Amino acid sequence: MPILVMKFGGTSVADLDRIRNAAEKVRAEVQRGYDVIVIVSAMAGKTNELVGWVESTGPFFDAREYDAVVSSGENVTAGLMSLTLQEMSVPARSWQGWQVPLLTTSAHGAARIEDIPREHIDQKFAEGMKVAVIAGFQGISPEGRITTLGRGGSDTTAVAFAAAFAAERCDIYTDVDGVYTTDPRITHKARRLERIAFEEMLELASLGAKVLQTRSVELAMRYKVRLRVLSSFEETDETSGTLVCDEEEIMESNVVSGVAYSRDEAKMTLVTVEDRPGIAAAIFGPLADAGVNVDMIVQNISEKDYEGHSGAVTDMTFSCPMNQVATARRAVEEARNAGRIQYDDLVVDTEVAKVSVVGIGMRSHAGVAARMFAALRDENINIKVISTSEIKISVLIDRKYMELAVQALHDAFELEKSA
Amino acid sequence: MPILVMKFGGTSVADLDRIRNAAEKVRAEVQRGYDVIVIVSAMAGKTNELVGWVESTGPFFDAREYDAVVSSGENVTAGLMSLTLQEMSVPARSWQGWQVPLLTTSAHGAARIEDIPREHIDQKFAEGMKVAVIAGFQGISPEGRITTLGRGGSDTTAVAFAAAFAAERCDIYTDVDGVYTTDPRITHKARRLERIAFEEMLELASLGAKVLQTRSVELAMRYKVRLRVLSSFEETDETSGTLVCDEEEIMESNVVSGVAYSRDEAKMTLVTVEDRPGIAAAIFGPLADAGVNVDMIVQNISEKDYEGHSGAVTDMTFSCPMNQVATARRAVEEARNAGRIQYDDLVVDTEVAKVSVVGIGMRSHAGVAARMFAALRDENINIKVISTSEIKISVLIDRKYMELAVQALHDAFELEKSA
Repeated sequence: MPILVMKFGGTSVADLDRIRNAAEKVRAEVQRGYDVIVIVSAMAGKTNELVGWVESTGPFFDAREYDAVVSSGENVTAGLMSLTLQEMSVPARSWQGWQVPLLTTSAHGAARIEDIPREHIDQKFAEGMKVAVIAGFQGISPEGRITTLGRGGSDTTAVAFAAAFAAERCDIYTDVDGVYTTDPRITHKARRLERIAFEEMLELASLGAKVLQTRSVELAMRYKVRLRVLSSFEETDETSGTLVCDEEEIMESNVVSGVAYSRDEAKMTLVTVEDRPGIAAAIFGPLADAGVNVDMIVQNISEKDYEGHSGAVTDMTFSCPMNQVATARRAVEEARNAGRIQYDDLVVDTEVAKVSVVGIGMRSHAGVAARMFAALRDENINIKVISTSEIKISVLIDRKYMELAVQALHDAFELEKSA
Repeated sequence: MPILVMKFGGTSVADLDRIRNAAEKVRAEVQRGYDVIVIVSAMAGKTNELVGWVESTGPFFDAREYDAVVSSGENVTAGLMSLTLQEMSVPARSWQGWQVPLLTTSAHGAARIEDIPREHIDQKFAEGMKVAVIAGFQGISPEGRITTLGRGGSDTTAVAFAAAFAAERCDIYTDVDGVYTTDPRITHKARRLERIAFEEMLELASLGAKVLQTRSVELAMRYKVRLRVLSSFEETDETSGTLVCDEEEIMESNVVSGVAYSRDEAKMTLVTVEDRPGIAAAIFGPLADAGVNVDMIVQNISEKDYEGHSGAVTDMTFSCPMNQVATARRAVEEARNAGRIQYDDLVVDTEVAKVSVVGIGMRSHAGVAARMFAALRDENINIKVISTSEIKISVLIDRKYMELAVQALHDAFELEKSA
């Protein structure tokens, strides 16, 4: 039998009615001829409740006990899903992480999956079981203790099972019906994508599209697991949702697939830094140590001799999430006080947002950047920082123009039309 | 190090404050020099919530999945208790049933403990751990699936650990401060017993005293585990609560230790049953099959020849819980319809209660029954059925006299005075 992996997130299993609804979707796939592996999250709200209890015990809690407590939410859902399927006459049983066993590292709270031996589950499929329900987000360490994979771990569990069992596809059921060209709340012209390449999905996920966790997309890309994102709350069939797949599976593509944004960005500039080898490491090492998520980095090279500086100098600009500005400032100032870097001034702008266009098509099409900048110019939007990758162009702009920029770019690249 | 087992029920760990309060008691025992094994129940209400969800999936649920779901409540408490102890600088870790492993039969929902290998926990004690926190009520079957021990399973878990680890004592923390001579709500003269013999506790438990589950007392008696019942909600020390122990440890004892009662009893009489070998089996077999908890059985042998009956006849009276009367009636009537028994009439009295006096002292003291009957006579209470065992005398009386009878017997045996 071909194997299908189906993953249901917390809102999709929030109560018994929703579990029943999800189970109906599983049954439909069994009837289509699949052996199904179902990955479930905890019922919505349960994990937060458990985390809250753990955090109330004290500030420095043992991550092993955290994992033992927090993983229990998924165990409950797995049992209830299995019972619901059995009640529908679908042969099912549940597996907790340690029962599979899903073997992980000992990094409690953020464990990495090492291996998923297939024997136990394969044997049950051979005996007539049609659905293996797996408690997501958890595994077992070499020491025999329960581990969790960190937030988004259930998506990662699903992709790992799909890879281990060579599943035909990994369907991620969630509360949206797919991946859109941009946020439909910003423009009604936003269109659901039928297909999107792994690389594009990765860029969109890292840019704040909340549909899939970056980590699970990376894993899917590495093992070529075809992912489908679709809604638990709608009638679905073979054509529903968005398929995240290898770019070879995407016949024709728009130059740009989507426009992403990130609202709460900050821009920090170190003015008049000496331009010497190792200066970037001297700045960004302390920032990394402080846990600041530095995103864009731009260095304006200057050959001029500023007053009081003997060598070449430069301005160094970077962006980070707005709520990390204080941490970033402290890290930079401590590095200066310790004599490791020098600068004349630290300028912070917390009123910026990031807007990006993403698309594998831009690899083979020149002029995407020019088209983007022209569209922004036509709206009189000033670009503060530019950063590009092979399939993405991002700009920082004043936050108040963010929605306008997204709409203008969506129009400029004609994303309302399919390829 | 001597080992102490401490068990905390659901109300004793109902929230984080109570868990902290329980952890303080554990720390106090560690400071007294014990290595401690703590058994925890689920937070009050959690197990019922989980059972409710399971039952909502359908009427004929898979007991293996039931166990997987329902056991998660104890896992949460075990982790939280371990974290709370660690926060108090007490080296602790949690163990779920399968991790110990607590090996059970495969009778899901009512599994029997088979073995508790000590190696893992002994090793951690040797490495400096002071407290092993065990999720109660659960184990693992030979098939590697999670089992539960049934209601009261956490008490049983505690006693089994105390036996396996040769613990000095097994302290059961609950919401009452010990075992009383009778229910303090019925007479203010009720007195907490410092000690009580296993046999007495067993009789009291089976008579409705809710302090300890019958099964855990039986296990304690078999393995000579000294049990102590005491309150989570009061300051406690070495002399608190009631010690349930071997009768040899009880130096001097009252003839009667306590007066128990059971309010909601029913008396059923089969009138004019033929008195032949096998008649009792013919009546009580169907009742047992129907799940009726028959308690007292009295047969009034008669040699008279009743009209229409050729052989000897008798009246057969038994008692059962009031809410099983309908089931019992159906079972008896079906047996008659099937021709397996005959009787002239079935008389049901649902207005009765059972009052019992219990004490190992009565073995060596004649006249306890006479004293009991005299006390009831002095209050003009009519006795409807009498049943005796080696250390117990029970009577059925009109329910409206129940409190009066308990008070009269408490006075008659001078239970307000300690031995």
